[in-house]
Order: sequence, then structure tokens, then C-alpha cells
Amino acid sequence: MAFKSLGPSTAAFPTPTWVIATYDKNERANVMTAAWGGIVNSNPPSIAVAIQPPRYTYENILAKREFTVCIPSEEYAKEADYFGITSGRDEDKIAKAGLTAVRAEKVNAPYIKEFPMHLECKLTDRMNLGTHFVLIGQIIDVKAEEDILDNKDSIEIQKLKPIVYSPTDRNYYKVGDEIGKAFSIGKEIKDKD
Amino acid sequence: MAFKSLGPSTAAFPTPTWVIATYDKNERANVMTAAWGGIVNSNPPSIAVAIQPPRYTYENILAKREFTVCIPSEEYAKEADYFGITSGRDEDKIAKAGLTAVRAEKVNAPYIKEFPMHLECKLTDRMNLGTHFVLIGQIIDVKAEEDILDNKDSIEIQKLKPIVYSPTDRNYYKVGDEIGKAFSIGKEIKDKD
Repeated sequence: MAFKSLGPSTAAFPTPTWVIATYDKNERANVMTAAWGGIVNSNPPSIAVAIQPPRYTYENILAKREFTVCIPSEEYAKEADYFGITSGRDEDKIAKAGLTAVRAEKVNAPYIKEFPMHLECKLTDRMNLGTHFVLIGQIIDVKAEEDILDNKDSIEIQKLKPIVYSPTDRNYYKVGDEIGKAFSIGKEIKDKD
Repeated sequence: MAFKSLGPSTAAFPTPTWVIATYDKNERANVMTAAWGGIVNSNPPSIAVAIQPPRYTYENILAKREFTVCIPSEEYAKEADYFGITSGRDEDKIAKAGLTAVRAEKVNAPYIKEFPMHLECKLTDRMNLGTHFVLIGQIIDVKAEEDILDNKDSIEIQKLKPIVYSPTDRNYYKVGDEIGKAFSIGKEIKDKD
């Protein structure tokens, strides 16, 4: 077994499949799919998404300074994929996909009603990295469908069914079986003499 | 079915389980586990990880300006978890976990030999977001074990077996079955009249 050098690339695993929703200058709801980004701060809770400036969504976020990160369940993989291969400059993606845009409660941005959760975000920072800007959104609220919550109102990943994206074979994958409890299974090593 | 407001929090799905490896001032290899971050730029290829300044890894990255992002396979969930619940100030985590630190080829940082892939990174930027800094690493090289590559030297996620972290129930999960081909399954909607 040996390591092989694959050169510089953007291969990392697992990466998410997220749908960024905004209003454009005509107050029309628009969406794009992003696999690049992650949670980046605990207080204030913040999320980063990387977007290229020519994208319609970039223009909308800079203008409105608000957006949502909608998390599609695996049954909406086809719709999420479509949102990534078409520009909102050319067509009303949400209508064409047969989905429903609803105005978010706390930010001036829409969310996709059929997707089981979304984060309502306000743009707080951005950083130019070359081809992409990292946009930092402060998470003002997390909303989840009641039927993906357990009895303590905590989101259950097995009911949410988020989509894992694989950048090398460019396929979408499900989340599988539980491996173990974080901040717990490692104690066996920690407590060794 | 209705949406419930859960308040501002850092809940997002799926998030990764990554192990950040550095050398400290005594050239001792150290590791920490991070679930916050993502790919953020294509040219140069760059990755972001969010780290709190009091962490030993933060100090090491700022001093050396180089690090690796090692991706554990699911069989090393226990070791990855342990790396997240102990500080390298207090103990030699890699040795205690029975794993092997090897000097990376292109950056002044170690990688974990038992983990199937790692990204060799140079610090290029950082942004203070409050509790955490987002550290941007330019990916100088991606290295993968030969046995997780297909016949075109592309990493196979089903052989890599990366760990999905769920922030609400704080469990680790496997990557499951394939859902469909990205940039392809959405064409059915795009091509509709």
C-alpha cells in the first residue's frame, strides 16, 4: 500500500449538497446548488459558501445581503442537480422544477418549501480567493419540518436524509448507517494509561 | 407538515470529519479533528477550516503556515474522535492512538499514514469570525492510497469510506448508497419544455 500523488485539486470528502436561495432585483426567487462551504463559527453561528462572481446568486447576495441555505433531502436530488446546471438569468428554476418558493421569516430571501430544512442567513463578510468568493452568512435562524425532529426538537439526520456529494466521481450519495457517538467513542483511547 | 424555528445554531448537514495535522514548535506531530470547513476555491484549489485560537493546532498553523487535512476512513472513527477530545499540549495523541505520523512530501507538516487520503496545504489567508478563525489553505497536492483509486486514478468514495458527522445528535455516520449522477440527473428537468 502506497500513497499516490494526484496533484493539486479540490477533492475532499464528504462534501454537502446545498441549495442557496435568494431574491433577484425583480424580487423573483432564485436558487443555485453549492457543494463548497461549511459551518465556520459558533458565536455568532456562521456558515460559509463559496460562489463565483459571475453567478446570478452572487449578484443577488451582494445586492440583498441575505440568503437561505436550503438542505434538500435525497428524494430531491434531481431538482438540486438541475439547480446547479442552469442559470436563474435564463429561467425560473424553482417553477420549472415544480417546487415552491416561500418568503423566509427573518431574512429577505426565499426558501424551498419541499426541502426539510433551511438556514436563514445575513451576509457578514466575504473574501476573494481567486475564482470564488467565500461568503460568510450569520445564521439568524434554523427552520426544520416538524416530521424530521425528535421529541427534543433536535433534527434527525436519518429523517432529513441530506445528500453527500462526491467530487471525484461526481455522484450523489445517501447518508448510511451510524458508526458511533462523537465525543464518546474516543474516550476508550483517551482513558488508556 | 410545518416548519419549526429552532433558533440560531450551527446545524448543517452533512458535515465532514477531518483531521488537521501540524508540527509544533518542537517538531512534534499533532492532530485535531474538525467538522467545520469545506472546499472554497478552484484556482488555486483551496480548503477552509475553522479553528478556535486557543487550540494548539491554531498556534502550530500560524507558526508553520503549513498543515495537512487527513481524511479518516470509517474504521478510524474512534481515533478521529479521540483527536477531538484531547489537546496535543497534554499528550502525544498520534502515538497514544497507535497511529503513525509521516512527514508530508510538499509541506512542513505530518500526515497520518493509516488514513487513506490527505491534502497538503499552505496557509494563504485567515478571517476572524468571533470565536473561530477561518483558515484558508491552498491545496498543494492530494495524496491517496493506491487501493482507493479506480483505474483512472480517481478516488472512489465507497473505498475511501469517509465519515459524515451529524451536529445535532453528535454521531458519526457512513456514506451510503449512490443516489445519482451529478450534472446529469437534473437534465431531465432542464430539457423539459
